This record gives sequence, C-alpha cells and structure tokens, in this order.
Amino acid sequence: MVKLIMHGCNGKMGRVITDIVKNDEHTELVAGVDSYTGVPNEYPVFESIEKCDVKADAIIDFSNAAAVDGLLDYCVEKQVPVVLCTTGLSEEQLKKVEETAKKVAVLKSANMSLGINMLLKLLQNATKVLAPAGFDIEIVEKHHNQKVDAPSGTAIALADSINETLDHEYKYVYDRSQVREKRTKKEIGMSAVRGGSIVGEHEVIFAGADEVIEFKHTAYSKAIFGKGAVEAAKFLADRQAGLYDMSDVIQL
Amino acid sequence: MVKLIMHGCNGKMGRVITDIVKNDEHTELVAGVDSYTGVPNEYPVFESIEKCDVKADAIIDFSNAAAVDGLLDYCVEKQVPVVLCTTGLSEEQLKKVEETAKKVAVLKSANMSLGINMLLKLLQNATKVLAPAGFDIEIVEKHHNQKVDAPSGTAIALADSINETLDHEYKYVYDRSQVREKRTKKEIGMSAVRGGSIVGEHEVIFAGADEVIEFKHTAYSKAIFGKGAVEAAKFLADRQAGLYDMSDVIQL
Amino acid sequence: MVKLIMHGCNGKMGRVITDIVKNDEHTELVAGVDSYTGVPNEYPVFESIEKCDVKADAIIDFSNAAAVDGLLDYCVEKQVPVVLCTTGLSEEQLKKVEETAKKVAVLKSANMSLGINMLLKLLQNATKVLAPAGFDIEIVEKHHNQKVDAPSGTAIALADSINETLDHEYKYVYDRSQVREKRTKKEIGMSAVRGGSIVGEHEVIFAGADEVIEFKHTAYSKAIFGKGAVEAAKFLADRQAGLYDMSDVIQL
Amino acid sequence: MVKLIMHGCNGKMGRVITDIVKNDEHTELVAGVDSYTGVPNEYPVFESIEKCDVKADAIIDFSNAAAVDGLLDYCVEKQVPVVLCTTGLSEEQLKKVEETAKKVAVLKSANMSLGINMLLKLLQNATKVLAPAGFDIEIVEKHHNQKVDAPSGTAIALADSINETLDHEYKYVYDRSQVREKRTKKEIGMSAVRGGSIVGEHEVIFAGADEVIEFKHTAYSKAIFGKGAVEAAKFLADRQAGLYDMSDVIQL
Repeated sequence: MVKLIMHGCNGKMGRVITDIVKNDEHTELVAGVDSYTGVPNEYPVFESIEKCDVKADAIIDFSNAAAVDGLLDYCVEKQVPVVLCTTGLSEEQLKKVEETAKKVAVLKSANMSLGINMLLKLLQNATKVLAPAGFDIEIVEKHHNQKVDAPSGTAIALADSINETLDHEYKYVYDRSQVREKRTKKEIGMSAVRGGSIVGEHEVIFAGADEVIEFKHTAYSKAIFGKGAVEAAKFLADRQAGLYDMSDVIQL
Repeated sequence: MVKLIMHGCNGKMGRVITDIVKNDEHTELVAGVDSYTGVPNEYPVFESIEKCDVKADAIIDFSNAAAVDGLLDYCVEKQVPVVLCTTGLSEEQLKKVEETAKKVAVLKSANMSLGINMLLKLLQNATKVLAPAGFDIEIVEKHHNQKVDAPSGTAIALADSINETLDHEYKYVYDRSQVREKRTKKEIGMSAVRGGSIVGEHEVIFAGADEVIEFKHTAYSKAIFGKGAVEAAKFLADRQAGLYDMSDVIQL
Repeated sequence: MVKLIMHGCNGKMGRVITDIVKNDEHTELVAGVDSYTGVPNEYPVFESIEKCDVKADAIIDFSNAAAVDGLLDYCVEKQVPVVLCTTGLSEEQLKKVEETAKKVAVLKSANMSLGINMLLKLLQNATKVLAPAGFDIEIVEKHHNQKVDAPSGTAIALADSINETLDHEYKYVYDRSQVREKRTKKEIGMSAVRGGSIVGEHEVIFAGADEVIEFKHTAYSKAIFGKGAVEAAKFLADRQAGLYDMSDVIQL
Repeated sequence: MVKLIMHGCNGKMGRVITDIVKNDEHTELVAGVDSYTGVPNEYPVFESIEKCDVKADAIIDFSNAAAVDGLLDYCVEKQVPVVLCTTGLSEEQLKKVEETAKKVAVLKSANMSLGINMLLKLLQNATKVLAPAGFDIEIVEKHHNQKVDAPSGTAIALADSINETLDHEYKYVYDRSQVREKRTKKEIGMSAVRGGSIVGEHEVIFAGADEVIEFKHTAYSKAIFGKGAVEAAKFLADRQAGLYDMSDVIQL
C-alpha cells in the first residue's frame, strides 16, 4: 500500500484525486494539506505542509505557486518524493525544482494523462514503421467552443513527438482551402474541430495505400490528470533522487 | 422486373453497373450500347443507341458528351426515361436536356450516391432541431493524397444544405490556427484531411452541451455512384415527363 | 422569456438544470421546490409545491414518486404545464398522469435527451431509404463497466424504432460467434461494449455495397437529460391540455 | 534498387503487386512466373520458375500450393530469398519450408498487412501500461455480410497478442445479452459487426476512468497484403538463411 499526502486536498483536483485513491487498492491517503479546511475530509488535513507530521511514501501536489517553495523544502527534509502538478511556477521556482531533484525524487510533466503520455511513445514507434512505407500523417483534434487556441497544445506535442523521429523534416499544415495543390509527403496536416463542451479528443491518422491506422485518445473529464498523478506517485514512491516525467512512469 | 439499357456498357462505370444489376432481383440488363465492342457481354451490345431495337423501361447513361445528343433524341422517340450521368455537357446540351425533360422523364444529379443524397435531406431536419438548441456544427472530410481541392465539393454541398435551413447566415471557417478566438455561434468549421488512398469520408458533427451527434458517410469505391444510378432507374421507370434529381428518388 | 419552476431543485438533476437555465437566454427560473432547503439558491425555494405562490409558464420535475401526486394537482389547479421526469411511478400514478393530461399539458418521455429523440425520428427516414436498397443494419453501443444490462435500453429503442418501419420483420442478433453462417438480410446485429466510465455511445450503422452511413450519439454526462427537459418546457409553455412526449418537441 | 521476381504474376495479387512495385522507387520487377501467359506484361514472364534465368534479390510468391515445391528448390539453388504468401500448404510442404529456411531466407506470415502486424506489437506495449492502470479492453471488428466466421481471425490474433502480455489470464466474451452482470476485469469483450461490403475494420479499445484510447485499423482492399509483401521482400533481400515473419520486418 502506497501512502500518499494530498497537497491541495480541497481544491477541484484534490477532491478528484481523493475519489480516485478511495477506489484504488494500491494507494491510501494518509493526510491532506489545504489552507481551506471548511469541509469534512476522511483523512487529517493540515493548514500547511510544515504542520503535517504524518509519514508518507509520496506527495501529490495540485496547489498553487505560493505553496510550492515550502513543499519542496519539506520533501528534501523528510525525504518524501513529490509529484508536482502545480503550474505557473516562476523561473526561480523552476530552478529550485531542479535543485530539489538532486536530493529527492521529483516528477513534473506538461500533461499528466497516462493515455496521452503513452501515445507520445507509441507514435514514435508507429512513425518509424509507417512513414518509410509511404503512409501520410494527419492529426485531428476536437475541443469545446470556449477554447481560444488551435491546434491544442497536446496536438502539437503529438506532432512534435512524431516529427522527432522524422529528423524534424515534416512541416505542419493547418489549412488546405487556400491552394489547389496535392499534399506533399513531408507534411503533417492538423485540423481543429471546435464545438459544444467536448473535453478533448486527439486522433492521429496514418493513411497509406488502402490501409489506414488511427490512434485516438478521448478525455471525458479532467479527472484523467488526477489518475495520471496517482500512477506517477506509485512509480515515484521508492525512487532515488532525480527529476522524472510521465514518460518514465510508462515503462515500455 | 425493371428492364434496363446500359448506355456506355463497356466503360468502367458500365461494367460496375452490369455487376450491380446482376445481383439485383428487381432489375435486368436487356441491352448495352458502346462504341467499343471488343469484350464479351452477357447481353446484346449495339455500337450506338440508334441501332438498339430492344425495348426497355429505362436507360442508364455513363458515356461521353458526344454520345448524349443521340441518346436524348432516342429517349423522346421511344419514350424511355433516362438516368443521365455523363458529365461535362455543353451549355447547348444542358438546354437540350431541359427540352427533352418536357417530353420524357430525365434524371440528372451532381452526386449519384444514395447515401450522400439521403444525408443532404436528413441533415436539414437535424439542423432545424439542433441549431436552435445551441449545437455547434462542424464538418470533417477525408480524401486521398492526390486530391487538389479542399474542402471537397460534397463537403460544401453538405454545408450548403445545412446553411439553407439557417437562412444562409452561417459562414464557413477553414482554419483556426491564425487567431486566438473562440468560435462564434454562426459558423460551420470545415476540416480537410488528406492521406493515402482514402476514397471519401464525410462527417457532420453537431456538438452541444455534453452531447454530440455525428453523421458519417464512407465511400469505399466509385461503385456507389452506380448503385445510385440503378436506384434512380427503378424510380424513373414509370414516371411521366419531367426533370428529376436524386432527391426525388429518396422518398422521405 | 419562459418562466420556470424547478420541482426538485436541490437534487442532482435540479442543480444541473439550474445551471442550464442560467446560460439560456430564453428561460428563467422563478422558483424552486425541494424538501431539502439547506443550500443557498438564486431563486426562492419552497418546501412543497403547495406552498409555492410564484407564477410560471411551466414546471420541470425531477423529484421522487412521493411528490408527484401533489404536483399533478397543483398543475391542474394553477393551469401550469409540467415536464414530468420522475421515474418509478405506480400504476395508479400513471393513470393520474393521464387524467391530468386531459386538463393541462403534460410531457413524459422514456429518454429526455434531445439527440436520441431526434435520431429515433431520423433513423426511420433513413431506414425507409436504405433498407430497400440492400443496406444491412447494425447497432453498436458502449457503456461503463458497472452497467449490468446489455444491450442498453436506448439501443433497443433505436432498433425498435427502425424495425417499426420494417413491419417488425427484422430479428435482433446479439452473438455471431456460435454459428458459422452469413448474416441474413432481415436482422439487426447488436453489439454491447463495456469499459471504464463511458457515459453512453450509440452508433447505428447502415452498411451497403461500398458505402457505409453511420449515425452516432455520444453522451458526455447526464446533463443532456436536463437540456432536453428545458427544451421540453419551452415547447410546453403555451400548449393546450394533452399528453406529449419528446418526439413532439422535435418538430421535423 | 531491389530486384524482384513475381511468382504468380498474372493472378489477382500478382497484378496488384505489379502495380505497387511500379509506384515504388526502391523496387523493380525484373521477371514474372505464371502458367497463364495470355496477357501482356511489362517484364519477361516464364511458365515456371525453373525456366526463369533472370537474377533477382528476392521472390514474392502468391501462386498455388502445387507450384511451391519447385519454387523452394529454386530458391535454395539460386540462393534467392522468398516471401511465401501462398496458403493451404500441406504438412509435408510446411516441413519443406522449414528445411528450406535453413539454407536461404524465407518469410511466411499469417497476415501480410503492415498495419496489423505493427499493431500486434504496439498493443502489447499499450497493454503493459494500461491494464495495470485499470483500463478495460474491448475489440470491435467489422466485415462484409458474406463472412461466415466471427470474430475474425485477425481479431483473435489481436486478442491473443494482448493476452500474451497478461499471462493468458483474460477470457474472451462474445455476448453480454444473456446475463445481467457487470463485466469482470479479466475479460476482453469481442464484438463482430457484419454488413455490406466492408473489407475489414479492427478497433481495440482501452477504456479507463474518463479516458479512452483506441487503436483502429481499416483495410480498404486486399492490396494491403501486396504492400506488406513488397516491404517484406525489401527486408529479406540481403538476409541470411532463416525463417522470418512480418514481425521481423517491423523494426520497433
């Protein structure tokens, strides 16, 4: 049983992770930390990490930038690994993360979803096989109608991961309506669909002669980032000092 | 049993339709017409329609523009309805088609596929229900890597059909990567995927709050235009003079 | 602006509908009813419908069977139409619903989702066109791993709706692994996929010669039943007495 | 440039492969072998392999069992590797294949499609990551209405490949309509859709909490087996003696 502290336990992601751990037989929440303590929790909750005297195998952090410095100090002192999911850290804080990782295991990743991180790896293998065999590569992503950027950061991460195995020779094409031209070999077409409340779908298409292979990821809620964080915590529990990311969790 | 003459029986579509009719218990090919007679056929073949003395209920035409004038004259004289699928007719010929349609049943359509023509109708009904309920509309089409135009003519036809029920108030958006803006209500996003040898896929997406409805058409070969032509011929067999199109065949 | 009373406003669906109405410019919640009044609401809340003295154009009900009798009496007395979504009514109550509908507009439906109800109608049209043209019909539904019944009630409703236009001559086939036989024409194959937390996907496939047409509905949360209820309330606001269902709301 | 002999060049697959090679800049057909020589070819054609005196880097075989013995002898004598795609070999012939493979490179595989063989590998990696994380596994395959077996051999191969990484502990479930029970963890649901002329679709679904990952393979024609054979021939050209299969071609 991996014992966890949830840092930021009464925020949205903290509550999501509490639910995930409750339904996972391999992990257990032994304490929480949150400046807001107005709701009942099934585990002891401390106002700040400094006040927490419960022993744990790893900490999951979804808090805010202001609380991260204290957290990092605590992790070094108590030698507890930490899955760091708070975003918006300052340059200085990012340096502190690196320093901390020399003394204790720290995991930090752009996207915490297990599925997307696995696809980032598998797609490199698929590309190595299919691109030389003449398959064309296209990405279609779908998101809700409130999203302002297109294509999504995850779509670009997928394309970059593919392009890495292609010596970065492929260019990205976002619009084909303005030219009357056949697609070239060395391009990745990227389409962005926007509508309703779609949480996030990513589809990578390898289209060859009479054969199409598709890799599709569908997110139904932001809970998947919590799920990824819990898997990361299990992975991190016994690790030695170092800076890890989600690709380390996925042992292929 | 509907008796058919295949005009252009030894061309690619002529042979496709010969196969379709062979497997259809409601139709029968009683004669063919083709200037090329070097292959064996299971029905009598004439070098030109003028030489054909076999009685039929309808003619299916997939020939060439040069053969169409004689065909139209024949149809009027013999009072045989005709499904006219030859493209590239001159202005003059198009007028002759209209004149002919005053004396005998003629069917002519931009797209002969039964499925696409049915969708053109159903989508109007779907739009009337879903657009007022706040659903966003997007179209994704996929075609082979040799296609030079984007989006496809059929994708535009689908969008136009939808937009007709929206008082033509929606504009079409082909690229979202150049702006950082939310989509507006009154737009139809259109994405074009190009790769491999994909014959043709069209997907119309209505995305609402927590609910997505998709209509998808997949063509696996150009045979579907033959299939549509045979259905059109059955429909046309007993009709009185007039100019019909595929939407008449689909009785909703 | 359609003025609504939410009957059962502090239950899960009541809160969902409160959110929907807040974001809908055509409706407004003027009062709520709930035996539990321990949470703050942005509209006046009454412990029972009898105590509610706010005038409204329609009532949406997601409460419990015990509260329905009083609600029906109130609707007749005040002449307010009601969208009745509470399930598990007794035989006696169902009769009372029918009696009530003679005096005021009542809407009651097996499935409140706008999308599914629209598909039930469109599929009948599609079937009339595609079945005679030789298309085979298959349904694939996907749900979470806690669901005990298969196929889903909605999948059966879709099949029944299709079969109605086929003179109920098609039988449903759930398993093809036990025989070595080609599928027959007059069958609807039904496949049930179970996994993870999938809320609900239904796909109706018409597969013909070289052409496939798919109708797909994806639910991302139960909120879609709330959305359907609000649309139903708008529809019902000015109606005369009668028993309506969601198919009436969808004006095709 | 890899020089190829097409053994069975005037059969259906022989002609398909002739087309593929014509459009591939890395391979060239230098000779064909076929007992039927009544059609013109763009390369010299011999009635039997014994009469062929053209030097090549590899042979692709899509002929018939009767022609295989002579072919194997020829390959040993001339030291030319062979991609053996003819099916229905006798026990004795299969032994001869093994003997032959001791003296020259021979490639033989149940399924020649590049895409399916690649998926067989990637799915094992995906399973190792996703199964321990609680994802449920389901397979849906779609084929034409003339297919008598269900599920398809390829679907079973996909399931077997996945199950191999799960210590063969998962059982396959083909029908859920006869019980009112939740799915168990250790099962792979397998659904078979049959309709129209669908060539072959295979979809492997990993469904987790709020996250679904799908791997989909679509075949548009049997040409993909030809494509796979050409890739196999390129791979085999310089290999030393041994029995290879398509998984060797896919270098992950």
